[in-house]
Amino acid sequence: MNHRILDKIGKYEFIAEPFHCDFSGRMFLGHLGNQMLNAADFHSTDRGFGMKYLMTIQRSWVLSRLAIEMEEMPEQYERFSVETWVESSMRFFTSRNFRVTGSDGRVYGYGRSIWAMIDTESRQPTDIFSIDNGAINNWIEAEKPCPIEKGGRVKMSENADFVRSIDVNYNDIDINGHVNSVKYIEHTLDLWDIDWYRKHRLKRFEIAYVAETHQGDKLSFYREQTAENEYCVRLVKTEAQTENSVEVCRCRVVFG
Amino acid sequence: MNHRILDKIGKYEFIAEPFHCDFSGRMFLGHLGNQMLNAADFHSTDRGFGMKYLMTIQRSWVLSRLAIEMEEMPEQYERFSVETWVESSMRFFTSRNFRVTGSDGRVYGYGRSIWAMIDTESRQPTDIFSIDNGAINNWIEAEKPCPIEKGGRVKMSENADFVRSIDVNYNDIDINGHVNSVKYIEHTLDLWDIDWYRKHRLKRFEIAYVAETHQGDKLSFYREQTAENEYCVRLVKTEAQTENSVEVCRCRVVFG
Repeated sequence: MNHRILDKIGKYEFIAEPFHCDFSGRMFLGHLGNQMLNAADFHSTDRGFGMKYLMTIQRSWVLSRLAIEMEEMPEQYERFSVETWVESSMRFFTSRNFRVTGSDGRVYGYGRSIWAMIDTESRQPTDIFSIDNGAINNWIEAEKPCPIEKGGRVKMSENADFVRSIDVNYNDIDINGHVNSVKYIEHTLDLWDIDWYRKHRLKRFEIAYVAETHQGDKLSFYREQTAENEYCVRLVKTEAQTENSVEVCRCRVVFG
Repeated sequence: MNHRILDKIGKYEFIAEPFHCDFSGRMFLGHLGNQMLNAADFHSTDRGFGMKYLMTIQRSWVLSRLAIEMEEMPEQYERFSVETWVESSMRFFTSRNFRVTGSDGRVYGYGRSIWAMIDTESRQPTDIFSIDNGAINNWIEAEKPCPIEKGGRVKMSENADFVRSIDVNYNDIDINGHVNSVKYIEHTLDLWDIDWYRKHRLKRFEIAYVAETHQGDKLSFYREQTAENEYCVRLVKTEAQTENSVEVCRCRVVFG
């Protein structure tokens, strides 16, 4: 077993690449989210329950919720680290946390995520503890602090305003044939323009994934202001073939 | 001077991250292009003429043309390397090449690029040889083969078909306030759908940058078939304020 020589917490270094930074020279939240998901993948792979292994036994991790709360974003060319650890695991859900630090050790922010494990054939949830006799329990790190609010249900009324629809294209789709988790974040943050971002700092972003979107579908965005500097966004797909409309995810965006 | 201990050719390792791969599990060309541009940046920074230094003297590299020709694309989770070197330099243009190899040394493909150097205040071209007494000439590597066609002028008639218009959003814009070079590639490749990519391999992509696009502008795509499996695409911006239409770049896309 690997776990005797590996820490429960994995730490991975990244660089804030120029094209992953916005007009202000700070990293886009979507790209930071992507690095968190990479860190999760590296961490779980090193410890024997990564995607690559799960594929061989017809299983896959599915991201159910992600919340990111940042005091500051890494700046262009900056090296930063993402630490990640499993905070808890139940039979059908695992909770994984993240901490983002600068090369000087300064804490930029945190993330929280909830994952399910599915059978890739039936697309149904499966028992996480069935993997290697519940081996994930060897990796629980309940003590390390993650001092940000857990993501709850994103509450929205029926009065959200329609903002826009976009087509789902080739570059949105990952190997599973679905819009990838990061693209939803990017498209949602595109609802605000640069003038808005000049005046408001993105403080917290929360997303709850509900259903999958495919190429050819249309994605419609409905937005509702829920508090001062807080907005919720409902993403609804219209399926290419059936023209059915289905909610695919919900976001809560808090500006500072 | 650094150049006594550094090779003329820089080699940088990357990994084909899951969310940088398409429905087929192969890397998106836009992300590969991004890694080429990262490699160019690392190479020039290490040798004293990188963006970060140029910023301090009010200069910047500007990508003028990029051509990528691939036999195969790196697969999800694969480690690959991008080698880059300066093939030649004139007063106003530098030609930089790329070679992409797998961890087993297999060659995946090549890239060619042309760069100008501008004064960041006047936005006018400046003399590349004025940097450190023509120091770039110490780094010319004219012998290493780059066996792909140079990018020429992309010839198009006035008969190209209008395909679509899109809004330029927050996530398209980089620290210079312009649409970043990689986003043009992605939006252009989004003109074809997954069914097309299932049947056709993207073999060569060429882009010539002409003008800059800003947030709030609309980008319109005009496409013309110029040979079997070869298409040219003209990207035209409509400026938010003036409603002027201006060509911003031209692509040539060859499928295998």
